[in-house]
Amino acid sequence: MNRDNLFVKIVLNAWELNIKRATSTFESFNDDDIYTEVSPGKNRVVYLLGHLIAVHDMMQPLLGMGPRLYSQLDDTFISNPDKKIKTLPPVTELRTYWTNLNDVLMNKFHNMPVEEWFQKHSSISEEDFAKEPHRNKLSVLITRINHLTYHLGQIALAKK
Amino acid sequence: MNRDNLFVKIVLNAWELNIKRATSTFESFNDDDIYTEVSPGKNRVVYLLGHLIAVHDMMQPLLGMGPRLYSQLDDTFISNPDKKIKTLPPVTELRTYWTNLNDVLMNKFHNMPVEEWFQKHSSISEEDFAKEPHRNKLSVLITRINHLTYHLGQIALAKK
Repeated sequence: MNRDNLFVKIVLNAWELNIKRATSTFESFNDDDIYTEVSPGKNRVVYLLGHLIAVHDMMQPLLGMGPRLYSQLDDTFISNPDKKIKTLPPVTELRTYWTNLNDVLMNKFHNMPVEEWFQKHSSISEEDFAKEPHRNKLSVLITRINHLTYHLGQIALAKK
Repeated sequence: MNRDNLFVKIVLNAWELNIKRATSTFESFNDDDIYTEVSPGKNRVVYLLGHLIAVHDMMQPLLGMGPRLYSQLDDTFISNPDKKIKTLPPVTELRTYWTNLNDVLMNKFHNMPVEEWFQKHSSISEEDFAKEPHRNKLSVLITRINHLTYHLGQIALAKK
């Protein structure tokens, strides 16, 4: 395995591991428990589920992998804090989005040519990328993994 | 910048960014507030400070960068859950360890030859590493960054 493949494999492994952890954590909450706050007055687990779906879905345009699947979630789960928007999508629907999006992303990640991971993402200009070549697609995925584990730590607090 | 340097730079940037976040988060708690639980009945912020110091310090032998500095913390912050050991080291001491360890690690990370990041860490055998070359020193650091952000998400809940 060459060095470039190795980098990509390390990062994809970290993504896959933490998505699996998140999936089993979300599955440990039933459709009532998932409305528990991670700590009194803080985000509910269901909000973080919707938030993670929306943030991960945004990687598709950001990494040049196609359009969003669930942009209708942004208003509730990105632009507004928890409890601001009173009516959430049904939990079963969010669970389906989560599973489907993970399959879609994993498939696209594994099919992305290694060289592409070292190209710029869509939110950085050619000029800035020339000066800061470390701001590539792989660095976006690393940042998203850290965002995922940040919220995973919180969700773990709501487990019984 | 060659590809290997680039990848190391991406990971070191992520480490540095999250250590800075953690530092400013710990500084936002005074020496009394730091005994707050992140959620009722869960770890106190001060425990997570000691836990992160101990876990990060362990990277030194694991990455072949020298001996531990603060192995006396393991019993309180690794082997036992919070509140099991009644007497903690003074907070000012933990804060000093945190700052010093971050300086020491950052310095060692920046001085490690790029090629060494792709070598095996000390907990994997030569045979296993031959089969799984992605289990290198860099992958250890990525895992530690994820562990840090996991707890950072929790500590953020205790902020006023």
